[in-house]
Amino acid sequence: MIIPEDYVRFFDTTLRDGEQSPGATMTSEEKLEVARTLSRLGVDVIEAGFPAASPDDLAAVRSIAETVGQGVPEGRPARLASDGTETHTPPIIAGLARTHERDIEKAYEAVRFARFPRIHTFLATSPVHREHKLRMSREQVVERAVKMVTLARSMCEDIEFSPEDAGRTEPEFLYEVLNAVIEAGASTLNIPDTVGYTLPNEFGALIAGIKKHVVGIERCIISVHCHNDLGLATANTLAGISSGARQVEVTINGIGERAGNSSLEEVAMALVTRKPVFNIQTGIDTTQLTRASRLVSSRTGMVVQPNKAIVGANAFAHESGIHQDGMLKNAETYEIMRPEAVGAAKTLLVLGKHSGRHAFMNRLKELGVGLSDEALLSAFKRFKLLADKKKQITDADLMALASSEAADIPEAYRLEAVSVSAGSGLPTASVRLRGPGDKELVTAAIGTGPVHAIFNAIDQLVEAPAELLEYSINAVTGGIDALGEASVRIRMKSGALRENAQLGNSRSPVFHGHAADTDVLVASTKAYLSALNRLLAVMDAKRPKEETVPLSAGSGV
Amino acid sequence: MIIPEDYVRFFDTTLRDGEQSPGATMTSEEKLEVARTLSRLGVDVIEAGFPAASPDDLAAVRSIAETVGQGVPEGRPARLASDGTETHTPPIIAGLARTHERDIEKAYEAVRFARFPRIHTFLATSPVHREHKLRMSREQVVERAVKMVTLARSMCEDIEFSPEDAGRTEPEFLYEVLNAVIEAGASTLNIPDTVGYTLPNEFGALIAGIKKHVVGIERCIISVHCHNDLGLATANTLAGISSGARQVEVTINGIGERAGNSSLEEVAMALVTRKPVFNIQTGIDTTQLTRASRLVSSRTGMVVQPNKAIVGANAFAHESGIHQDGMLKNAETYEIMRPEAVGAAKTLLVLGKHSGRHAFMNRLKELGVGLSDEALLSAFKRFKLLADKKKQITDADLMALASSEAADIPEAYRLEAVSVSAGSGLPTASVRLRGPGDKELVTAAIGTGPVHAIFNAIDQLVEAPAELLEYSINAVTGGIDALGEASVRIRMKSGALRENAQLGNSRSPVFHGHAADTDVLVASTKAYLSALNRLLAVMDAKRPKEETVPLSAGSGV
Repeated sequence: MIIPEDYVRFFDTTLRDGEQSPGATMTSEEKLEVARTLSRLGVDVIEAGFPAASPDDLAAVRSIAETVGQGVPEGRPARLASDGTETHTPPIIAGLARTHERDIEKAYEAVRFARFPRIHTFLATSPVHREHKLRMSREQVVERAVKMVTLARSMCEDIEFSPEDAGRTEPEFLYEVLNAVIEAGASTLNIPDTVGYTLPNEFGALIAGIKKHVVGIERCIISVHCHNDLGLATANTLAGISSGARQVEVTINGIGERAGNSSLEEVAMALVTRKPVFNIQTGIDTTQLTRASRLVSSRTGMVVQPNKAIVGANAFAHESGIHQDGMLKNAETYEIMRPEAVGAAKTLLVLGKHSGRHAFMNRLKELGVGLSDEALLSAFKRFKLLADKKKQITDADLMALASSEAADIPEAYRLEAVSVSAGSGLPTASVRLRGPGDKELVTAAIGTGPVHAIFNAIDQLVEAPAELLEYSINAVTGGIDALGEASVRIRMKSGALRENAQLGNSRSPVFHGHAADTDVLVASTKAYLSALNRLLAVMDAKRPKEETVPLSAGSGV
Repeated sequence: MIIPEDYVRFFDTTLRDGEQSPGATMTSEEKLEVARTLSRLGVDVIEAGFPAASPDDLAAVRSIAETVGQGVPEGRPARLASDGTETHTPPIIAGLARTHERDIEKAYEAVRFARFPRIHTFLATSPVHREHKLRMSREQVVERAVKMVTLARSMCEDIEFSPEDAGRTEPEFLYEVLNAVIEAGASTLNIPDTVGYTLPNEFGALIAGIKKHVVGIERCIISVHCHNDLGLATANTLAGISSGARQVEVTINGIGERAGNSSLEEVAMALVTRKPVFNIQTGIDTTQLTRASRLVSSRTGMVVQPNKAIVGANAFAHESGIHQDGMLKNAETYEIMRPEAVGAAKTLLVLGKHSGRHAFMNRLKELGVGLSDEALLSAFKRFKLLADKKKQITDADLMALASSEAADIPEAYRLEAVSVSAGSGLPTASVRLRGPGDKELVTAAIGTGPVHAIFNAIDQLVEAPAELLEYSINAVTGGIDALGEASVRIRMKSGALRENAQLGNSRSPVFHGHAADTDVLVASTKAYLSALNRLLAVMDAKRPKEETVPLSAGSGV
């Protein structure tokens, strides 16, 4: 299959760079769910994680490789090959690896189960990184890169290499490194703007320089990976495409380290809306953008602001019943894209009290939610309970319902009952939990408010070294009887952090819990318990020391 | 005073284009608070509103002109004049006006109380707008623009003109219109990318073409006004500056119609971070960016996503206790700006139980919060109550506290008591309100959850044609005893909308209520009541028909 010259590959790194956002940690089950959605959306490459980071990370990448990396899901858009035939293939599954032997082995161990596996390895090339971080000479950098790409290539055909901090690397040295790794077998060269520092014309010139001066570049795909620290990630990515890049590294909602990565939906819609300028085709089914955005926001707990381009609640706000003079006369006066093009049409009221299990499961499948049989059954029971309370069940409600079922964390503590009295009095909560060894635990506590009282009661029952970082509740849909989705972030206390240094992860351990219920207090209780259970699961995982390595700077690609 | 060639003016339109975001409506008191913050931040021009929209809008602009437009606040940064002297002046206060006689008169009526008043008038020039919206010929467009700029100039020295949808206007016609309004007396020419459609190189070329071809342009300031529909607003604004624009129209947090406007903080920090490239000076005190962002987010209810550039919670996340190898060895490896540069250093714990009124008021003043004596006293009482419950009171807590006091809406209904029982039972709420005529109103109601029960009870007591659009709760600061800030958006029901057609505002009436309390249910109750009181205040305002005009498309500049 030959891919046409004007085709830009979408390399999604929501599960790797996106998951590096503080607190955006997902469970393996949630990662798989996101990967399924990405595949249906039509991304070409899914960077599924950093397998060497921990056995859990490796297992999550492997499980994505075995499932999403093997099958072509219903609804995955076909790509046009240059011979005019349509191709349906599963996405490439990539695993990140530093230029260390062990990292590369672990990456391959995880991705090899995919039909199209890729190892993505990186090494910093800029003077500031060579001198202060790596303490390596130019020669040592070239030698290490070549040696590790050669090793990776001996395992796997598809190798991507990233010169970290390329934008601040001396051009002639950058060209030298890139030529060397091409000779060693890399077929995709990814140019990251690691610190989000470059301007579009500079970044375009960087890519044009590489295309012009690197020997052997015509055999390779140039990729761009931009960060949004100055709000320029989309513009830089588009400048890269205009200069010849044919792969873009992006995330859903632009999540990622610091101010995040280039956002998939903005790049995709700029290419569509300005097609006559770019003349680029992609495999992205843009009508699934809104749904993918909501799923990632819900699973990572990273909210999308209303004025976010393409997927924000207000992005098409002149549509929502707002009578505007110009719009009524001619939509073209104020609209450059139709809400339908990104799947942002009004939420359909799909299910009600009398909907059966078949309809329920079908709709979940259409929404791209994958649950085990057991989880489906339990979600269906909750659906029936919800339908008793709420007349119209929307897609958003369904996704919130399924969300609570998707978690695969061991539940050390399970909520049995919570009861609260609050308002203009002394806020009081009583909580009954089922703990380890099937032990029943009951207590009551007061607090400055009902949520404080509930969390105090739980803290009395569950001994976990946690401190609350963030707490929020959002109504899932409009309407006063809406499901409330509670989101909680906790951090392991610093003392506990030292004791758990053997976990080796240099990222501050932040845990996210979310739960939905028509009662916001019940949702809050479940969300807090879920975050605590995650923290306890990590603390209990007594892993042998040699199984983990510290992540140097979480990978700054 | 002569302003140097390399000085870019910041024209902030948070109070006009920003306030056009669905549901971001602010009260006059809140607008004044935002204007004070903008002045301290060092913006050169505050677009305070659209005075012809309603008497309330006019009054709000006038009140800003009379106060912020007259005084130089403590802490407002000085600008360097080209003769080397530092100047301290109050900001220019601008009012928007369509090219209608009445609009221009109303705009002047409001801004004339400022030391430096400006009238900003606009007219669409593109074929699609001329034909479908205006139904005017080219000649008629030029004639109208000249006539209205002449009228405005007869009242006010400082006139800005915007050719709406300039990006889709035939270049030679655009040059003709601009030359004509310069001759008529306009001194700032603002080029809007109304629909957020252009790419940076296109927009830069548009500005360069205007600078090159418009006769008389050397006597004027070229301004740029970019929208973010494709995520390119910041890049387009910077491209405009590189091509010679010396005014940028921006909003705090990038709020505004649809996907919003170019964001002030991104443009300001790009100019600072890449100073050697741009060689531009501004009057912005970047250390106040974070505080301004939080104030606007709280007053408009528009959340800022964690991965928002510059002001998002994660923008400097590698700072927050996260040990990163590279960062520890040399911060420059991963950091292009210091958190201190945008005022994002750790929140100071400023006040506790024993802090007196003086310390409290001083701190509020430093935070830029302006309250009446009465509101201050009431906020202080709430501060003392809070200090009893919560050990450490942070700046964020103070701002949330003051927020509830800043509203100046007539309180038709006041909360006296709310009591709730919820959890694994039948959620029940009892509510006591003080209504019009000092009448006591009491009832109880059940619901699918405690918030639903409270809102049901209130709906029984308050007859208002409202439907709930959005509901959220956020913990203001970390810590389990944090203040919760509830935010509610309601919309007037469509039947009621028709009855209120005489209000003339073609925007769908959405009302925002927010309130903070350690008890999230009390906060929710107050927020909902506050939104209902706003709706009732608008419905009660029986304004004579001739006092209002429909806003055509809310102004698409």
